[in-house]
Amino acid sequence: MKLLNVAGYVLLASVLCPLAMHSQARVPQHPLDALTTEEYWEAHEVLQKSGHLSEKTYVSTLLLHEPLKSTVLAWKEGDAIPREADIVLEAEGKTVEARVDLAAHKLEFWKVIEGAQAPFTNTEMDAIAEVSKKDPRVLAGLKARGITDLSTVHCQPIPLTFRVFPEEEGHRIGYGTCTDERGAYHYWGRTIENLYILVDVTAEKVLSVVDRGPIPMPTGDASFEESEAMPREGTTPLLVTQPMGPGYKIDKGEVSWQNWNFRFRIDPRVGAVVNLVKYKDGERLRSVMYEGSLSEMYVPYMDKDQGWSWRAFLDAGEFLMGGLFKPLTSDDCPDRAQYFNGLVPSDTGSPMLKPRLACMFERTLDNPAWRHGEPDLTSGRPSRELVLRTAAVVGNYDYILDWVFQQDGTIRVAVGATGIVETKGVKEDHVEHAMGDGPPKPEYGTLVAPHLLAVNHDHYFSYRLDLDVDGQNNSFMIDRLVPQKVEGAVRKSIWADESSMAHTEKDAILDLDPKRPGMWHFINPAQHGAMGYPTGYEIMPGATGVAFAAADDPAQRMGQFATHQIWVTPYVPEERYAGGTYVTSGKGMDGLPAWTAFNRRIENTDIVAWYTLGFHHVVRLEDWPVMPTMWHDFLIRPMNFFDKNPVLTIPHQP
Amino acid sequence: MKLLNVAGYVLLASVLCPLAMHSQARVPQHPLDALTTEEYWEAHEVLQKSGHLSEKTYVSTLLLHEPLKSTVLAWKEGDAIPREADIVLEAEGKTVEARVDLAAHKLEFWKVIEGAQAPFTNTEMDAIAEVSKKDPRVLAGLKARGITDLSTVHCQPIPLTFRVFPEEEGHRIGYGTCTDERGAYHYWGRTIENLYILVDVTAEKVLSVVDRGPIPMPTGDASFEESEAMPREGTTPLLVTQPMGPGYKIDKGEVSWQNWNFRFRIDPRVGAVVNLVKYKDGERLRSVMYEGSLSEMYVPYMDKDQGWSWRAFLDAGEFLMGGLFKPLTSDDCPDRAQYFNGLVPSDTGSPMLKPRLACMFERTLDNPAWRHGEPDLTSGRPSRELVLRTAAVVGNYDYILDWVFQQDGTIRVAVGATGIVETKGVKEDHVEHAMGDGPPKPEYGTLVAPHLLAVNHDHYFSYRLDLDVDGQNNSFMIDRLVPQKVEGAVRKSIWADESSMAHTEKDAILDLDPKRPGMWHFINPAQHGAMGYPTGYEIMPGATGVAFAAADDPAQRMGQFATHQIWVTPYVPEERYAGGTYVTSGKGMDGLPAWTAFNRRIENTDIVAWYTLGFHHVVRLEDWPVMPTMWHDFLIRPMNFFDKNPVLTIPHQP
Repeated sequence: MKLLNVAGYVLLASVLCPLAMHSQARVPQHPLDALTTEEYWEAHEVLQKSGHLSEKTYVSTLLLHEPLKSTVLAWKEGDAIPREADIVLEAEGKTVEARVDLAAHKLEFWKVIEGAQAPFTNTEMDAIAEVSKKDPRVLAGLKARGITDLSTVHCQPIPLTFRVFPEEEGHRIGYGTCTDERGAYHYWGRTIENLYILVDVTAEKVLSVVDRGPIPMPTGDASFEESEAMPREGTTPLLVTQPMGPGYKIDKGEVSWQNWNFRFRIDPRVGAVVNLVKYKDGERLRSVMYEGSLSEMYVPYMDKDQGWSWRAFLDAGEFLMGGLFKPLTSDDCPDRAQYFNGLVPSDTGSPMLKPRLACMFERTLDNPAWRHGEPDLTSGRPSRELVLRTAAVVGNYDYILDWVFQQDGTIRVAVGATGIVETKGVKEDHVEHAMGDGPPKPEYGTLVAPHLLAVNHDHYFSYRLDLDVDGQNNSFMIDRLVPQKVEGAVRKSIWADESSMAHTEKDAILDLDPKRPGMWHFINPAQHGAMGYPTGYEIMPGATGVAFAAADDPAQRMGQFATHQIWVTPYVPEERYAGGTYVTSGKGMDGLPAWTAFNRRIENTDIVAWYTLGFHHVVRLEDWPVMPTMWHDFLIRPMNFFDKNPVLTIPHQP
Repeated sequence: MKLLNVAGYVLLASVLCPLAMHSQARVPQHPLDALTTEEYWEAHEVLQKSGHLSEKTYVSTLLLHEPLKSTVLAWKEGDAIPREADIVLEAEGKTVEARVDLAAHKLEFWKVIEGAQAPFTNTEMDAIAEVSKKDPRVLAGLKARGITDLSTVHCQPIPLTFRVFPEEEGHRIGYGTCTDERGAYHYWGRTIENLYILVDVTAEKVLSVVDRGPIPMPTGDASFEESEAMPREGTTPLLVTQPMGPGYKIDKGEVSWQNWNFRFRIDPRVGAVVNLVKYKDGERLRSVMYEGSLSEMYVPYMDKDQGWSWRAFLDAGEFLMGGLFKPLTSDDCPDRAQYFNGLVPSDTGSPMLKPRLACMFERTLDNPAWRHGEPDLTSGRPSRELVLRTAAVVGNYDYILDWVFQQDGTIRVAVGATGIVETKGVKEDHVEHAMGDGPPKPEYGTLVAPHLLAVNHDHYFSYRLDLDVDGQNNSFMIDRLVPQKVEGAVRKSIWADESSMAHTEKDAILDLDPKRPGMWHFINPAQHGAMGYPTGYEIMPGATGVAFAAADDPAQRMGQFATHQIWVTPYVPEERYAGGTYVTSGKGMDGLPAWTAFNRRIENTDIVAWYTLGFHHVVRLEDWPVMPTMWHDFLIRPMNFFDKNPVLTIPHQP
């Protein structure tokens, strides 16, 4: 019987119990481990004893406060483990930051953050939903639509991301609509449109109700789960098995697989945080990345109607209620996957154990790692890879978020978008003359069902990538492919590779332009490979989109990080979120735009890259009632890090 | 026992014989089937009897001449099968086109094509290699380098793609270098640099030899295959099996899998040609694509040195000797794959059977086809896909070329680049001061080993996509996401989706610009789905590069198709190759630039899309001595083709 010692528990290997869920360790093994149940309660106790709490103080976020990088890098097994928790509280309209030293049972500070708003808590959301549904103006609006049975109606105001109303100064303002789930088993696609509610969450009252008149309820079939499963003709089983168990190991939270070593935790704000990523190159265990994680999301909708122009989300910073990161199922990960639980805080700060927040598995894509054919000999090797997967559910939308480790030293970061597209009730029950020879089709969305418009929108994912290539001091090198005129040869024009170093942050705020291509490298100026090149890693975009709305747009101000594809900053422990720490009712320009305004030096020092993967979404009928998964990705890949192809010697069996 | 009837043979299913090779049919089953052995010999016989052949007439290309589309679409089983072969011959300096009616045993025409050059034949290449190696100037150059044992030396001139020398008028001109394989088991990376040879292949003589003086021979380890296989620690078996056999069927050459139906053949010029691609939507078998294939490649190198500025390749049109498409191995395709043989012509026109030119297999990527999480219920379905794979080997480089059919109606076209990068001998044995604080690193390439520079270059793959969405008459619709100022709402700026029809070819020559995004659709103006939208398919780029050299560059003139990402033309049977039919010593501007100069109408008619997938390659040390596979892709995906998500009802088992 093979045993895996996972984070303090001895658990059966997935070979015997493929769906076994591996819990959080009760005692942290490493300074970067997620907070444990005991630590949640320790924080709770310290806060309770602090004398600062009223009955209406709610925990909005509760996160591991990472020790200093120098501390972590110096730490070795057996040393004391520094442990702190960062807590953001909503205290009767005030936003409070507190830090608890868990080992010392001590409140380090409790400070009111002026002008900032904590993420909405479930308590607030539930309370204002109740208030909204009882408001006479709302009731009148519902009645005007013939809706008097309120038992099936939800009125759910949600936080306003950007600051546009004077009421937002000092008050938490939400907006929303009602839905009627009548006839379906969920309420998506069942919007009671044209009835818009603005609420003061702090004062627990409805500020205003705008009723632009009844329109028909959408009637499209939203019941995607009830559809009968119909295996397609001729389908035969396709089985992937690992009879000897997985090819990776997890020892005290450290994953080792095919020359890779790394740790990870589930953070309730940004999900999977991958740490201390190293590659074993011969006898050397070489540093690639100190930390990588999602940092923020930005999802602006593109409808100018009242009640809709409010809709822009910075999902990671806004929606921590219960955690963005939701349980995975056996349809999300293969049977052989190993699952990992995680803890997220309740409004009182108590830990809620969420099962299966991540899964890990090996797969072969049936692609060669390399190959070459000569007339008499074709050589090659099959490849496999390791996937660390989480899924975020943000209301209607679902995102599959993968960190994929390849044998050749490449990390592929992939985002699969699925779930339900956001819809709006409209008058139209079909589109006429969609061909340009009559009235135009709706320019703000796609009519996916009668009276149901799936509204155009964008998705942006900012990743914080604290690469430490062969150590902390790195530089950001840009290799631009520059056109060059040729004289005295048969060619007239070629391109040359011109390397330059980014000296300060402004040098490293870069846009993709297919006609002016460039490559983005983290290099270690002090480490050179066999041929003399500095060792490096490249951040290589996949297909991606840019947020191109005007700069004075309040949503765009919040999502300004998405207007450029890469930014590079000096490592500062507090700089973790591309859109700033507090995005609820934000004024914008926080995070990357604010930090880089100082144009700090980023050369030969500890630096962090911020890459934004984005895409525009004009919805297809095929995306309704639930969207086929659409993937986007980018690569973090070795660039003169190894002296030669690192997968030359892998065997012929995948 | 399950039997598969493949193209006229009854063969054992791969369940019993997983590596069985399925031969070409001896008798064609369908007008679009590849030419058979008998048909090759029929063509041979007709040519022999024609009285046109001299002893020095060589077959340069021999391809199926496809029947008219109307003929193919009207054809049904039992009808006579029209069969013709198109042959290009090299006849003592003249380029001849001939067509043979195979059924009628008849030469339809024999015409000399003025100004065009046929692809080089193996006979020519071998002859000029011999001549080069005996040239006294070459021998002197070799001797000056201390090379007197010529038994290990290869001097291989290759065709010059573009026309820059007066000698190219009426003569076939090649250029080349010599290599010395001494100490290695192949000659890649063993260039005898600075000794450049210009040859007249027609006259079988060396025109000039340029000797710029000896430099040291590169010494890097090029023996990638001899490296010992070293399984990485902890690796366990990862087995993918289909105990009941594959989930697809091939009946008389027609593949059916998961609602998809299509045919394919291996064409000696462009490889896999996928035909009559249809999707079964309920009871309707709906047309998606009449034909899809690679159309041309363009690989320009970026070194202005004499002897190197010649290097730009249009590989599909130039290198048909023996077929670009080379046998696959068990490292290229999984064990469960089914392989397909193919025929390519010899210089005499005789058929050469090449084993395993394509493989087909199902795989699951362990990704959900869709998913959505609600608090109490998470739904989803696992996915699988069908892969049709070929591999091209163009001298040093290898390309894996996949057509991937997804369950949701999407076709993913993927190119994996691997093999050996092209290298040049240089004086340098290492790089100093690569950091910008000293002499710059080489701007034309990467020093991958002592005295060995891997030269910068680009790769472009033009795909010809004859989509027929729900029938032949389609229009090309561009949906541009256009910034819109907002007034009277909280937002200031959004984007709107503005559809427009491309009326003529010039409307449809388009570039990707992340700041001005758009979507490219083939729509059927006469077919509307449930909501009223025209049915359509989108061509959706992945990450891609643009050929941005100046227009007066002779290589760029040949590869002009790669300067824009998409072109759309009316369907004309003869327009098959983006760079023109004859690319050897070409003047450029043939193919797409020439055709579209007429700016023909492309609205509501039979139209063809030409998409170019491209990437720049600054070589990494990791790419030596053989390059880890680098993938790029694009999607052909339904856009309002279905009325709703077509994978809603797939079962929970992948």
